Amino acid sequence: MEKDVRVIEVKRSIFENNDQDAARLRAELKEKKVFLLNLMSSPGSGKTSTLLALARALAGRIKMGVMEADIDSAVDAEKMMEAGVKSIQIHTGGMCHLDADMTRQGLYEFGMDGAELIVLENVGNLVCPAEFDTGAVKNMTILSVPEGDDKPQKYPLMYEKCDLLVINKTDVLPYFDFDKEKVERYAKLRNPDIDILYISARTGEGIDALADWIVEKANEWRA
Amino acid sequence: MEKDVRVIEVKRSIFENNDQDAARLRAELKEKKVFLLNLMSSPGSGKTSTLLALARALAGRIKMGVMEADIDSAVDAEKMMEAGVKSIQIHTGGMCHLDADMTRQGLYEFGMDGAELIVLENVGNLVCPAEFDTGAVKNMTILSVPEGDDKPQKYPLMYEKCDLLVINKTDVLPYFDFDKEKVERYAKLRNPDIDILYISARTGEGIDALADWIVEKANEWRA
Repeated sequence: MEKDVRVIEVKRSIFENNDQDAARLRAELKEKKVFLLNLMSSPGSGKTSTLLALARALAGRIKMGVMEADIDSAVDAEKMMEAGVKSIQIHTGGMCHLDADMTRQGLYEFGMDGAELIVLENVGNLVCPAEFDTGAVKNMTILSVPEGDDKPQKYPLMYEKCDLLVINKTDVLPYFDFDKEKVERYAKLRNPDIDILYISARTGEGIDALADWIVEKANEWRA
Repeated sequence: MEKDVRVIEVKRSIFENNDQDAARLRAELKEKKVFLLNLMSSPGSGKTSTLLALARALAGRIKMGVMEADIDSAVDAEKMMEAGVKSIQIHTGGMCHLDADMTRQGLYEFGMDGAELIVLENVGNLVCPAEFDTGAVKNMTILSVPEGDDKPQKYPLMYEKCDLLVINKTDVLPYFDFDKEKVERYAKLRNPDIDILYISARTGEGIDALADWIVEKANEWRA
């Protein structure tokens, strides 16, 4: 099953101050006109299927690449490659998050020259990834309907750090108790400026609006 | 909304060797005939609703208490208390997991004398909690159908460490692509001895079998 996906094993950061290092990486991204989007969520909220839907919606608008981070396996990068999306798999060596230097190792391996939009699919985890600035230009989190409407209460830092909350799997809303108003209220309590979009990666609902959001932010950054 | 739930803020461990400390805690549990079950999963897989269903199924069979661990909020302990289950809320101070000493702080606050079954609902996270022995007698993980069938591939350590895999939300199986055979195969690849049960905390399907599993293991431990 392991195909020709490039898998890189990143090493622990040598920098003591991750925030400074992240700022340095962001400056390099600015210079190279690369828009790096850090995508975080629980395991199974639909990060990979959202990116597959986005790849179709963004075709011809912006060149998208994906860095898939995981503890183990290359299943996500394989799916991307099969869909024709340039991707690499980053293995964190058991680490529960990526910091700026680990992200840089991935970017250098991926290749930044000529890249326009690179999405970093972070490790599936609502806790640790929110604590480490990866150097990304924007942060986005996906909350899927089956996970429940109490996540912004329980994982405040994730919502505080994100510019965009995408609520996924809207096609199964009828089968779950999920209070949209409650989620929006608590998410905005953590971060009044957070944007909120509803999608179903499966049916394609809302994907165009998400693509528009990304292209707009990428254009602002790359101008 | 914050009711009379007891919330304790645990402190970082002072012990360098968590494995030794966990073994010490387990010996104390054995002496006091307390069965501690460590429950781990992604955020939103249904830990709390499973425990609420279990509380009903275990009534009259074994005395159950719950320690709810979370980064923030006391919503889970409040739900337990409303259902008449003895519970406390443990705040980890931002930490993504509990180690043995943090678990001990919770147990001492909860009170071990006369306790029979205490469930530790760990922080919602498939990565870090698996790395730290809490001192629990058995470890159990919940995978909910909407999370997808690739989790044992992506989070191997969790499945390696668990004695029981509970697959929850079987009532929505018709709405998701979820390959039971694949999950079972990969889970057993990580841990050939893992037990696997299917439940729906919402409909109650499979809860009695889960209650039986817990009572059997608790009786063995407390004999």
